[in-house]
Amino acid sequence: MASRKLVLGTILYPSGHHVAAWRHPSTSASANVDVDHYIRSARAAEEAGFHIAFISDRLGIPQSRAEALQRVDEWSHGFEALTLAAAVATATTRIGVIATASTSFNEPYNLARQLASLDLISKGRIGWNIVTSSLEQERENFNPIPSFDHADRYERASEFVETVLALWESWNPDSILRNKQSGVFLGPDALKSVDHEGRFFRSKGPLNVIPSSQDHPILAQAGSSDAGKALAARTADVVFTAQPDLAAGRAFYQDLKQRRGAEGRSSDHLLVLPGIFPVVGRTRAEAEDRYATLQDLIQPEVALSLLETYLGDVDLSGVDIDGPLPDLPQSNSIRSRQGLLTGLARQEGLSVIGLARRIAGARGHWQVIGTAEDIAGQMEDWFTAGAADGFMVLPPTFPDGQDDFIRDVVPLLTHRGLFEPDVTARTLRQRLNLPRPLRMNTKTERKSA
Amino acid sequence: MASRKLVLGTILYPSGHHVAAWRHPSTSASANVDVDHYIRSARAAEEAGFHIAFISDRLGIPQSRAEALQRVDEWSHGFEALTLAAAVATATTRIGVIATASTSFNEPYNLARQLASLDLISKGRIGWNIVTSSLEQERENFNPIPSFDHADRYERASEFVETVLALWESWNPDSILRNKQSGVFLGPDALKSVDHEGRFFRSKGPLNVIPSSQDHPILAQAGSSDAGKALAARTADVVFTAQPDLAAGRAFYQDLKQRRGAEGRSSDHLLVLPGIFPVVGRTRAEAEDRYATLQDLIQPEVALSLLETYLGDVDLSGVDIDGPLPDLPQSNSIRSRQGLLTGLARQEGLSVIGLARRIAGARGHWQVIGTAEDIAGQMEDWFTAGAADGFMVLPPTFPDGQDDFIRDVVPLLTHRGLFEPDVTARTLRQRLNLPRPLRMNTKTERKSA
Repeated sequence: MASRKLVLGTILYPSGHHVAAWRHPSTSASANVDVDHYIRSARAAEEAGFHIAFISDRLGIPQSRAEALQRVDEWSHGFEALTLAAAVATATTRIGVIATASTSFNEPYNLARQLASLDLISKGRIGWNIVTSSLEQERENFNPIPSFDHADRYERASEFVETVLALWESWNPDSILRNKQSGVFLGPDALKSVDHEGRFFRSKGPLNVIPSSQDHPILAQAGSSDAGKALAARTADVVFTAQPDLAAGRAFYQDLKQRRGAEGRSSDHLLVLPGIFPVVGRTRAEAEDRYATLQDLIQPEVALSLLETYLGDVDLSGVDIDGPLPDLPQSNSIRSRQGLLTGLARQEGLSVIGLARRIAGARGHWQVIGTAEDIAGQMEDWFTAGAADGFMVLPPTFPDGQDDFIRDVVPLLTHRGLFEPDVTARTLRQRLNLPRPLRMNTKTERKSA
Repeated sequence: MASRKLVLGTILYPSGHHVAAWRHPSTSASANVDVDHYIRSARAAEEAGFHIAFISDRLGIPQSRAEALQRVDEWSHGFEALTLAAAVATATTRIGVIATASTSFNEPYNLARQLASLDLISKGRIGWNIVTSSLEQERENFNPIPSFDHADRYERASEFVETVLALWESWNPDSILRNKQSGVFLGPDALKSVDHEGRFFRSKGPLNVIPSSQDHPILAQAGSSDAGKALAARTADVVFTAQPDLAAGRAFYQDLKQRRGAEGRSSDHLLVLPGIFPVVGRTRAEAEDRYATLQDLIQPEVALSLLETYLGDVDLSGVDIDGPLPDLPQSNSIRSRQGLLTGLARQEGLSVIGLARRIAGARGHWQVIGTAEDIAGQMEDWFTAGAADGFMVLPPTFPDGQDDFIRDVVPLLTHRGLFEPDVTARTLRQRLNLPRPLRMNTKTERKSA
């Protein structure tokens, strides 16, 4: 049996994952409108054998602080994720493309169609990152939905995912006959209705897009709240997560794998990929210098605004930023991240502005600043300690931060026997060693909410 | 002043526009899942200097007759239009890509984002074909909307388009500063809220995707009912239409241009493109043979089912198919096409099955069966008689039917001085000689419903 190998993903971002990346001399401040930038980044990852290119998204502009908004390039994620995924998939041949789409402000039939279509365009390389869209500024861009509180958002998400799966499974690929002679294109059992009537959605079906070579897109999730983990344990193939250190990462990993087991499904088929924000130097001093250069470009109003968002849209405007973090109202939106950040501030004794600057770079993800050996070694530690099945790499800057990781760290991971680009797999599902989904009769396998 | 030139578009279809194209020996019956087929077709049109590749779409499977459904490849349009448009735009460099999306089963913010993102991906070559989704089988795939009758669908469409335009115009491109030194990315007036609260939609804005080099996608429309023409006159840059002959085409063209004038806007900036279904032969006899070969592949249940759909989802199951078309209930969905078809049946003295077969090939569009000279000549007649600013070419089959037109007809159009590929234009808006939209203060220019 082949030994377990690391799964590697890269995020596709405009100038970089670091909040001040756009100001760095090596980056393009126009990357967020430049599709060729995204295609180059995805191709570089594909060349290096990465499994996944990941595209985040958001349905509005966080406007908590106008003066901060004017000082970042990330009020715009640049492109809408599904259309960008189509462009990236068309310009690549092997890498999987996982794109973000919301269950709160879409209809299942539309999203099922777009994702199935993407799966055909990519020839079976698409994944859907399921998000529930927590921001008030997202909600206001759409017609009202019945309830936006945390529990209802997740209940809605659960019903949404079930409906999309049912639509994807409304086809029997074996009954697509295409017989020119007889004139029969479809056998009598080629498609079936879905007839979904739930609390949040109605959809009769069937879908009018045929399944791809990987049957349907894989499912990814990043919610780390209790409801988010429950949804992931039930439905996800891949989980992305922001974990500040090995101990937190290990606890999260074990929790999720156990929840998956409790669903009666193999925990090997739920891949947990923490983010890593790697700053690579030829020496540790060089790495620290590179980090400091980026940190020096952070504008205080930007860091504070980001902190407000990450704490769940709280208002820190009256707070002494050189003092400790005050007690916060429990957030309706991003519960899990609020807990991580207050913990981090306590642990490292950070002031409000200190915490803001500390997380503005990596945005709450695990950051490793050091040589390629340092970084590869720590990745191995997480992998062997049961804290990660692989990593979502968050390059501080594009293209240099990504190039550094690919040139210096990836060969060490290969040398350590942790990473081996799969050159035989054709679909993302094969590449991730995930089983084919059960078709046509999955209600017991995928328990509903 | 340069003389007026023909605008040429091509539809991107699976095996061909003819309903039995998938059974023809020259076509691929798997074209509807083959993205490379669509890319090849778009590139062939681009090479030939076409302005537009057009992607139709539908949000469900018409199921009026199960036995017909099993005998066509078109219950699936193969791909969802916007994701396919992204793939086609990524694989081409000059041709405009106009993709269909519905105003009845989307939210304006989502569609505005996806279209703006496509416009960036294509570097300013996208158009939106605005449809209202008339089929009951589309409606049942979505949560209920307040009303689905013809007038309300168009009122909703009108508000939808206004909202999308406002969102596209929520940016001031001149205030995107990207100043690395000062850290200021946006000037203070870079974006503004939309604050739309209407009968059907709410959207606060601004959009989080930046305008493209053509400001925003161009707008296309194909509704030919009174409400459809009113919407087109008010908002469209391009109108596609199915007109069976020159007289009908001229009446439609003049009506639409006059309505545009009545809106106080130049009728030169509303391009009317009737469909043409060309069957090209080296001789007329060869063209007739080619047509007959396709017609012989039509299965009666398919033709009748298509006729039922085109008449507005009527039920012809009890009708004597060898007799004349009975009186029909007025359709709520496709009023204008019902009128054209009953007129055609009367004019040509067709039985029900005769009408069904007559329209199944070209699907109600103008069909020309003859030599390249015949076809180019009749296109010139329409163009000079004030019935067309150009044409949407509907190849009977892919790739041969498209190749025949490009190889044999296009050079004759060029020779006659009617067609001249524009090699300088970069955006679709430039290529179509359309003015830049007025920004930031367009309420009076684009009157609301």
